[in-house]
This record gives sequence, structure tokens and C-alpha cells, in this order.
Amino acid sequence: MATIRLIVRYDGAALSGWQRQRNARTVQEELERCASEMAGETVRIHGAGRTDAGVHALAQVASFETQAKIPMKGWRLGLNSKLPPEISVMEAREVGDGFDPRRASAGKRYRYLILNSPSRDPLFRDRAWHVFDPIDVAALDRGAQKLVGSHDFRGFRAADCERDSTVRQLFRLRVIEHYGGVRSLLALEVEGTAFLKNMVRIITGTLVDVARGRLREETVNEVLATGDRTRAGITAPPYGLYLDEVWVRPEYRMPDDSLSLRPDYADAILEATARSQDEDSDDE
Amino acid sequence: MATIRLIVRYDGAALSGWQRQRNARTVQEELERCASEMAGETVRIHGAGRTDAGVHALAQVASFETQAKIPMKGWRLGLNSKLPPEISVMEAREVGDGFDPRRASAGKRYRYLILNSPSRDPLFRDRAWHVFDPIDVAALDRGAQKLVGSHDFRGFRAADCERDSTVRQLFRLRVIEHYGGVRSLLALEVEGTAFLKNMVRIITGTLVDVARGRLREETVNEVLATGDRTRAGITAPPYGLYLDEVWVRPEYRMPDDSLSLRPDYADAILEATARSQDEDSDDE
Repeated sequence: MATIRLIVRYDGAALSGWQRQRNARTVQEELERCASEMAGETVRIHGAGRTDAGVHALAQVASFETQAKIPMKGWRLGLNSKLPPEISVMEAREVGDGFDPRRASAGKRYRYLILNSPSRDPLFRDRAWHVFDPIDVAALDRGAQKLVGSHDFRGFRAADCERDSTVRQLFRLRVIEHYGGVRSLLALEVEGTAFLKNMVRIITGTLVDVARGRLREETVNEVLATGDRTRAGITAPPYGLYLDEVWVRPEYRMPDDSLSLRPDYADAILEATARSQDEDSDDE
Repeated sequence: MATIRLIVRYDGAALSGWQRQRNARTVQEELERCASEMAGETVRIHGAGRTDAGVHALAQVASFETQAKIPMKGWRLGLNSKLPPEISVMEAREVGDGFDPRRASAGKRYRYLILNSPSRDPLFRDRAWHVFDPIDVAALDRGAQKLVGSHDFRGFRAADCERDSTVRQLFRLRVIEHYGGVRSLLALEVEGTAFLKNMVRIITGTLVDVARGRLREETVNEVLATGDRTRAGITAPPYGLYLDEVWVRPEYRMPDDSLSLRPDYADAILEATARSQDEDSDDE
């Protein structure tokens, strides 16, 4: 029996999210179908985090166990030849028995792309949120910095989120202006150990509402203090969101691993995740 | 009667190219349908150059004449509300009577995107050509530089290209490595006054075939010297190609024009285009 770890990229716009479900095309289901065909046995795929319908991934981490004896390059090429064009396996490698992406994850980085322009852009449709009103980038950044640290984020989660514990730790929020001017492309990077359902999208929607003058700057702190979702901004659309990177805990890393544990605050992450190993993470 | 100039962006992957045709969805036809609806009269749209099915445009230039009295902002917003998501009007402005995008064009820049990677990328499907074999970027650039200048490009055109004159002048070819490594994104920028049918795609296919070792480096000069299409490389797929910029001749430019006449070789372009005003350009 071998355990295989995959790094998977997908265009979420045409898919119904990560998790297997009835009558819908999902990433987990497509991977299971293709891996089972290759292995000649039923394969169950586990992911580091669920992503909602419409949400993309640059490097989702997944794994499965199999009896099949197939070389690693064969897994990557074979899966890619069977998978639909919206999903691609970037890497397949054998890892130690008992590897589980959810337990192995020390944290994640999400990226949210915003196109701020008076005209929509056909080449970014389904790839970025088109915001018509001018965004004050400095205000976006000021709002973002208020969320760094350990906070109760229950005001920033979906109504149907079922987690009991709603305290989460964000290590860094970074606003990047890929290009400026009348037509600007902005990215909001959010790094943390674990996320509540729709947390990054509600954070983004709230910060953008502040930065385009629809909400007061004090709103961010008020939502943190009161936990009142109704005071926060809109939920930004799923197709602007990318699961960017999954950090793997040192004990699960392989020699020359392509997955990293960010070095600049690795210690803080390990400390935080040691405390929260029971928390189920990530419903973006 | 007013003449309106449009700057139009489109995702060519879902469209059958620029030019109006039977039983196919094209950019010209969609623009004509929407502009006619707004104007309450039949509107004919003229473009600076045709693009083939699958080819994208960042800034196609188009124009039309109309009796309708609609403010400029109304044209942009109105057209964008009627156009399908694959097409967007980035700018609409009134220009002088007799403006014709084809005559006004002094040249164009095309951009070809190549994803060089062992795995396909779902987020670049229909946006870049995925080349599996490693590309030698220095060889790509050496090949490109051989094409700069005035040459007979009949070896680099589609079999059904009907132009009598096949001499064209390329001012600059530039290879840009957006990011390197195992997964690299490359762009080939091609600037010239006018282009033969599929010329940029056959140039790209040939240079890539050289740079991945399928053709010898001498091939580029041999195809120029012999005009033999069969010696050149493949025609790169349309969905990697972008019409990037159209340069407008000084006499057609408006005050504070958002369209430029590139200053660094403007004189050379004007000289070249003064000689070739009768040449119909551009069948990419």
C-alpha cells in the first residue's frame, strides 16, 4: 500500500467546488474517478481544505492510498490525460504512510483578485471580481492590517458555518497593486492557520466596501468586537478567490519538498497549529 | 452624423473571430447588433484588423458612424450592458469625420503567450499555448532577432493568404520571461506595420520548434530565403495570440489620445506606412 500526495490546480468557475456531492461535478469526485480508473480499485481522495463552487486553486494538496504499482510520473501524466481541462495535477509523489493533508497542513495562503475598472474585462471574467467604483488602495490596506492577529472572526463567516470555535489567527494580510491607474488589478493575500466558511470572501467584501466608501473605516473593528455579520460588507464572489499555497508541517515534509513551511513565521505557525490540531479548518 | 471610435477587448476563445460571417458569433457582428439597437438604425462597424477565431484582443480599434445623439459615456456603458461577457468596450470617443481604423493604423503589436511546463495549467487554458518540451529561451530570442527588419514573409503565411505583396517590416521582436523555472510563462511581442494571414502564429510556431530542438536554428533564415512554408514550423494555436496595441497615425490622433504612436521608432513607422497605404493589412 502506497500513499500518494498530489498538488492540484483548478479553474473553479466551471466546477461545483472541492467536495464530492450528488449531481454536481467536483474536484474530489473527478480525481477519485480518474485515480480509481488508473488503479483498478476504488480510490478515496482527501484534500487539505474544501473550496466552494467557483473558487480556484493554484496548489491544493490532496492524497490517496492505493495498492496499484504505478510510477509517480505515470500518476501525474495519467491523471492529467483523464481529468477535464479545468483540473490539472502539477505534482505526484509518494509520501509516508498516514499522510493526511488536513492534519499535515500548518496553514494556508489565499489570494483574492480584484479588477478595479470602469469597464469589465473579458479576459478576467471568472478570474477576478470586477469592482466598478474606485477603490482607495491605502484604505484597503489600513482595513486589512486591523485583521492581523488572533481574533474572533464570527462576524466574518457564512450564516451556515458550523464551527463552534470561531477564533482564528491571521499572520499576514498584504495588498498588492499588480498594476495601477484607471484600470488596476489588486490582490489581497491572506495568510493564516485555518479559516471559517467564506471568511476570506467576507473579509474581502468588507474591506472593499470600506475602500470604496460604502462602509466607514471603523466597521472592521466593530465587526471584530461585536461579531455581528450584518454590520460587515458583502461576500465577495467566489471566482476572485484562489487557494494559493498550503504549508506542510515539518514532520510531514519530504526531502526537497516543493511545499514549504514559510520560514519567516514558521515558529508562530507551529505554535498556533499545535494548539489547534482539533479544529477542523477551511470552508472557503 | 458623428463618427465614434471604440477600443474593444475580447476573449477570442469563445468567438469565431472578428469578421461578420454566417452562422457564427463574431466580434464585429455582436458590436453591430448592440450599436444598432442603441442607435435605432443599422450601424456598420469597421475594425483596424481582422482576428481569427480564438485570437484575443486587448485593444482592438473600431469605428462607426451614427445619427444617434448619445453621450460618449452612454455608448460605452450601453454597449457593455448589451454585449456578451466575452466582449467589452474599454473606451468610446468621438473622432473626426472619415476616421477609418484600417487607414488610421500605423502598425500593431501582437503578443503571443506560451506556458512552458510539464503539466498543463487549467487557469491558462484558452489563454496561452501549453508547450510540454523545455524551451531554450536564448534560442527563442536568437531566432526572433533574425526576423527584425524588412523581409519577404511568404514562407510565414497561411496557405489561403491572398495578398500579392508579401514583404513586411517588423520593427521589434521581444521575448519576455514573465516567470522562469520549471513552469515558465513566456511572451513573444511582435511589432510591425502590417501582417500576413497567420504570420505571427507561424513565426511563433517556428521559433518554438527551433527553441525546443525540433528544427535547426538555420531554419529561420532558410524560410526567409526560400519562402518555403513547408520548411517552417507549425502554426501556433490561436488562443495564445493577443492583438495588444494599434498605433494611430498622427493625423488621426485626438487630443490626449489613449492610443499611441510609439515614439521610439515613430519616424520609421510613418515612413514605412506612407509607402504601404494600399496594402491591406492583418489577417491574424
